[in-house]
Amino acid sequence: MDSKVLTYCCPTQIHLGIHALRTLPEIITRLGAKRLLFLTDNGVASTEIFKLVKNILEEQHLPFDLFTDIEPDPSHTTVEKAHQIYEKNKATHLLTLGGGSTIDVGKAVGILAANGGRIQDYEGIDRFPNPPVPLLAIPTTAGTGSEVSGSCVITDTDRSLKLSIRGSTLNRAKVAILDPLTLSSLPHHVAAHAAMDAFVHALESYVSLNANPITDAMNLYAIGLISQNVRPFVANRSNLEAGLQMLCAASLAGMGFSNTGAGNIHCMARFVGAFFHVPHGLANAVCLPYGADFNLMASPQKYARLASAMGGAVHGMTTLEAARTAIDAIRRLNGDLGIPSRLREIGVTENRISEMARLCFEANYNRWNPRYTTVEDFQLLFEKAF
Amino acid sequence: MDSKVLTYCCPTQIHLGIHALRTLPEIITRLGAKRLLFLTDNGVASTEIFKLVKNILEEQHLPFDLFTDIEPDPSHTTVEKAHQIYEKNKATHLLTLGGGSTIDVGKAVGILAANGGRIQDYEGIDRFPNPPVPLLAIPTTAGTGSEVSGSCVITDTDRSLKLSIRGSTLNRAKVAILDPLTLSSLPHHVAAHAAMDAFVHALESYVSLNANPITDAMNLYAIGLISQNVRPFVANRSNLEAGLQMLCAASLAGMGFSNTGAGNIHCMARFVGAFFHVPHGLANAVCLPYGADFNLMASPQKYARLASAMGGAVHGMTTLEAARTAIDAIRRLNGDLGIPSRLREIGVTENRISEMARLCFEANYNRWNPRYTTVEDFQLLFEKAF
Repeated sequence: MDSKVLTYCCPTQIHLGIHALRTLPEIITRLGAKRLLFLTDNGVASTEIFKLVKNILEEQHLPFDLFTDIEPDPSHTTVEKAHQIYEKNKATHLLTLGGGSTIDVGKAVGILAANGGRIQDYEGIDRFPNPPVPLLAIPTTAGTGSEVSGSCVITDTDRSLKLSIRGSTLNRAKVAILDPLTLSSLPHHVAAHAAMDAFVHALESYVSLNANPITDAMNLYAIGLISQNVRPFVANRSNLEAGLQMLCAASLAGMGFSNTGAGNIHCMARFVGAFFHVPHGLANAVCLPYGADFNLMASPQKYARLASAMGGAVHGMTTLEAARTAIDAIRRLNGDLGIPSRLREIGVTENRISEMARLCFEANYNRWNPRYTTVEDFQLLFEKAF
Repeated sequence: MDSKVLTYCCPTQIHLGIHALRTLPEIITRLGAKRLLFLTDNGVASTEIFKLVKNILEEQHLPFDLFTDIEPDPSHTTVEKAHQIYEKNKATHLLTLGGGSTIDVGKAVGILAANGGRIQDYEGIDRFPNPPVPLLAIPTTAGTGSEVSGSCVITDTDRSLKLSIRGSTLNRAKVAILDPLTLSSLPHHVAAHAAMDAFVHALESYVSLNANPITDAMNLYAIGLISQNVRPFVANRSNLEAGLQMLCAASLAGMGFSNTGAGNIHCMARFVGAFFHVPHGLANAVCLPYGADFNLMASPQKYARLASAMGGAVHGMTTLEAARTAIDAIRRLNGDLGIPSRLREIGVTENRISEMARLCFEANYNRWNPRYTTVEDFQLLFEKAF
């Protein structure tokens, strides 16, 4: 480690456990909420978990307004609509029941409610002066870690671009409830994509130029939890033990990458997602083996430890041998979860590769990625992955 | 894991790195401090690091008042004196440069400044209604993790008792700076005692009844960092790389135990410290092998993983065999650091054992300790350790 000064912060209070949702009334009381804007998507709104949360709010006689029109890769217009309801009804707090898209809309509404303006005004790092209004997040996927991360991603549909909005200490949920009951109605593929999203966060944060012993602790353990639990969890989303471990892994990875920045894989997935409307977790998962293989030479020791955390039998191997088994283990994991191995299988077309490579380079993930990556490198990475 | 709902929170923002102290001006600006109460002890006040911090404050033209009369196991009267200076000079923020004692005085002053009254009024959990005034902590030992923990310990000298004051979300430093330059003038034995304090925090939190995957991540990694770095660090406190790893380990362990509670070792050390004025880290270190051996049967799998995290060659062993090697490794570690193996060697007298056993039982660490412990068990533990 050189003499760079790094930072770690995660102020979210996490309540975790099977049936952790039963702490919702005490949390609402503690937060002093007078009226909630309750954000969810139409899929979640048809589940038993939604009814359970709604019943808890009604039993508490806590007024709330419901907004359910949240799409995957949510747009700036969705944020604006939700924000109008928040203002019109004079809500005091935000509640999200959903995956990364819903939490990100919650964060974006929280920024607008406290700062006014348009969400496009806040693209970048620490661009909003006032702390967002408090957000209570109940994730229904184990993936993004958005509940503890200092960022949200909103699609600017006017410009076909994903806006990345980050806040070093402000932009987290005030409270998160990790209850695996919320995962039990997840479709197989959504569970798999979200899990690999968390895996990519943990891996890219672990090898980031800003990695430090505190984030290493979280990322390495997250990788172990995912490696041990993702197969049983994706096989049966009602496996509450495995689901809880996966939720914790996703939060740990969120604490990690939001403090260190991500890397090439995340960067590639960002533009694949924006150009081809591929779910973020799936785009990450497909790019993962290629990006990991490219970065290995920057940090063989860390890749060897990654292999071990993934449960690999690396006893007696050299560092480089052990490191290479991590790439094999990643490919096997993707295969077991039914993740396609090529970008062409998820709708990417070859004619956009040069443009994506250029945008990846311009997005300057070289701030964080352990191997310096040129525009030509990105071109080759996309071609290999195509 | 059963269906208990557990919580995790650590809102402290951590700046870490060799020369991380250079971020002090930007932190002070961000916190909006108008006048500091600068707390340190007379030992630290004679070091180069103290001069460095003082110079930074003077260059910033930030007015501050200095209070240096902080003793080990600080008393309630020390807290009252420091608080009077805070009030008299209308300070707005607290700065501590020192180990656990100094940070704990800072926390206690912060509670009084925001809530009035006497520090004795706040013994227990969440007894102070107002958030303490903001504290910026620069630890000069790698041990207590007090900068990120939700507790402070103040000795009530009228009653010869240690007051444990805890706050579930409030009682942490706002910002902590982990810079190993602060460790380089530590005496050998202080470095060793502090390190074993951190080790005990990590171990007791890892096997706590409230342990969860998030705290496990921190504790297990802290144990690995300490096991790898404590010998080189204690051998040479100017080893900045090892020092930084130790500071991170102490903070990780602090994040762990302040969310899970501690266990028998901590409990025994608490009364050994209060009765015989033994430094807290030393008392913890001497009690450690006895308490660990007693608890092993409650969680052999975790002890096996502990052995592995400590660098043990457990390949091919059964869980129980591997678990037992952890106790051997702990005894070797204590031996290498020059920690006495018996309580009699650190001034404990046999005639107080029954009283300490009774107080340990009444302190009810059975809320957290993985093996239920009766007053007779404590009696036997003290006798074995004597």
